[in-house]
Amino acid sequence: MKFIIQRDRLVQSVQDVMKAVTSRTTIPILTGIKMTATTEGVTLTGSDSDISIESFIPKEEAGDEIVEIKQPGAIVLQAKFFSEIVKKLPTDFVEIEVLNHLQTVIRSGKSEFNLIGLDAEEYPHLPQIEENNKFQIATDLLKAMIRQTHFAVSTSETRPILTGVNWNITNGELNCIATDSHRLALRKARIETDHDASYNIVIPGKSLNELSKIIDDSNEMIDIVITENQILFKAKHLLFFSRLLEGNYPDTSRLIPAESKTDITVNTKGFLHAIDRASLLAREGRNNVVKLAAHDDGVIEISSNTPEIGKVVEEVQSESVTGEELKISFSAKYMMDALKALEGTDISISFTGAMRPFVIRPLNDESILQLILPVRTY
Amino acid sequence: MKFIIQRDRLVQSVQDVMKAVTSRTTIPILTGIKMTATTEGVTLTGSDSDISIESFIPKEEAGDEIVEIKQPGAIVLQAKFFSEIVKKLPTDFVEIEVLNHLQTVIRSGKSEFNLIGLDAEEYPHLPQIEENNKFQIATDLLKAMIRQTHFAVSTSETRPILTGVNWNITNGELNCIATDSHRLALRKARIETDHDASYNIVIPGKSLNELSKIIDDSNEMIDIVITENQILFKAKHLLFFSRLLEGNYPDTSRLIPAESKTDITVNTKGFLHAIDRASLLAREGRNNVVKLAAHDDGVIEISSNTPEIGKVVEEVQSESVTGEELKISFSAKYMMDALKALEGTDISISFTGAMRPFVIRPLNDESILQLILPVRTY
Repeated sequence: MKFIIQRDRLVQSVQDVMKAVTSRTTIPILTGIKMTATTEGVTLTGSDSDISIESFIPKEEAGDEIVEIKQPGAIVLQAKFFSEIVKKLPTDFVEIEVLNHLQTVIRSGKSEFNLIGLDAEEYPHLPQIEENNKFQIATDLLKAMIRQTHFAVSTSETRPILTGVNWNITNGELNCIATDSHRLALRKARIETDHDASYNIVIPGKSLNELSKIIDDSNEMIDIVITENQILFKAKHLLFFSRLLEGNYPDTSRLIPAESKTDITVNTKGFLHAIDRASLLAREGRNNVVKLAAHDDGVIEISSNTPEIGKVVEEVQSESVTGEELKISFSAKYMMDALKALEGTDISISFTGAMRPFVIRPLNDESILQLILPVRTY
Repeated sequence: MKFIIQRDRLVQSVQDVMKAVTSRTTIPILTGIKMTATTEGVTLTGSDSDISIESFIPKEEAGDEIVEIKQPGAIVLQAKFFSEIVKKLPTDFVEIEVLNHLQTVIRSGKSEFNLIGLDAEEYPHLPQIEENNKFQIATDLLKAMIRQTHFAVSTSETRPILTGVNWNITNGELNCIATDSHRLALRKARIETDHDASYNIVIPGKSLNELSKIIDDSNEMIDIVITENQILFKAKHLLFFSRLLEGNYPDTSRLIPAESKTDITVNTKGFLHAIDRASLLAREGRNNVVKLAAHDDGVIEISSNTPEIGKVVEEVQSESVTGEELKISFSAKYMMDALKALEGTDISISFTGAMRPFVIRPLNDESILQLILPVRTY
């Protein structure tokens, strides 16, 4: 194998596939990045066996030569060293050559690295996925949907299925749901498809988080292919595979109350900042819990009290408070997570009593909701 | 105590004195910030008993009212909570009031905090320092001198005196020296003084590091007063006290070779980058050691070799190599620290043999030098 490549493109691809590489693997070859040169260009692969990422660097793009292939071939190089090296090479073009079998030379200006590679034949094959049933979604919309749901997955392995985000695809609508059983995030959107297959899968939260880091904020379409135990995201020059979680995701539809007894409309930012301040003294005391009292006159009082430290009272003037007066306690962290995930300047919160889950929505937007279970303190 | 204060000024002062506050103290009141209001303004104090910082906020400045004192007094508030609170308050002005004895109210817009304070009478007094023998130095020069020396102090407590920077003041010249016994950093400068007292003191490296974080990069003069066991830095509205280390600092003057057998002049940046790359494979292998070979033709070869990973060879074209050919090994980290501390585009390195300390200096600048002990490998 021998080729000359633009350093910036190589650095970008290495960074992308590095997202799948972990040093904590029991399969030694997965600590490496696989590099394959063909007459078409160079393909990099990284994998931790849960996530696999493939990044392709074409020979040329828009008339610009990116890679000059001198001899096709393949090698696996230690990801930790290779990624540090390419970032720090001195010249714009880099030559990579595999000498007798595994010895790999990286040349750039007056800098020459000799790395001992691993046999590319021993690198696990990525899943072969048939691309019959494809969906399409805009990349920036996908990123938003991930951002607005994945934070609510469970971080505990006691119910592994809750560490994933439930994707439900029916009639051209994608429903993303995440819950750790104390709060729930839900986001819907239309997706493009030319078939009517339905899916109900659970994608590891970590996979979605890594995916959202490497796809860009463009409105280009990304292809999605789902198989029995894998999902493939296919963007330009990028393949992202994730395994799916096994098991049944709980039915969450019954959790979301259809009616409400108290409704608040309030400016998102002012409310978020008041919760943030009220939680400053709560953080130590009792697990970050703040109290909210909604009054007839539209004033919302948020407070917390930790005897040995002190107390705080915040007043927020709402747009409106309708229905019964209310006192309720909840986790300030869950509320702030939810508010940061919502878009829009005003939100409405619908309560059905101090001990029932409540729902936060942007005004006039049915595509997203956040649900939080209160804490018993009043 | 009661006053109204500009929030931004309060936030800045709290951040400054926080540099001295640690939660790992055996004296509970030192986890707090002392706040004293007089008719002149408000003084904040933080201390970990090694370092003490006092920041003064005047009643008014350039005709602008900064503090409105309603009632003088003093209180100590938990630093961790107080600093978080002031940063997040919603309005530009903040009211702080001590009610019956220790209960302190912080008001800002519709936000009201009640903190339980500690008795200011119990806060330790800062050292009383007589300001007879003062020195003066420009703030930006002081910052540079700290940056160029403090990194070389020892991080090990086996010889506590080496965790400090030796300041030697004689005949209006300040000599700063730091060494961990493997490398040494030296920086000299003229200082302003109206007396001829000499000093030879050792300031904890940590104190100087914190000091350099809170003084600004201006050319305003800073006053320095030295007592038997304390040093005081006095800038506008800021007092910074540090204890001095006890014991005799080793005589380092004999360490610096007066002659040389090989001299190299090289571009600082190119040399630094080559060392950095050569150390990439060395980091794991043998404690970050790289080899340097200086050839007659002016080529400097930097290399490292870790059998199980690979090897790297860098060539740097020097400005000049004079004297004997040389092969030497040293810590890449020490060399990079030294190169980053030096100013100027070109440096000269003077060697007196493969097993002797060598000296790095900027070209045509006698005020600074870095010395490194080689490692025995060739």
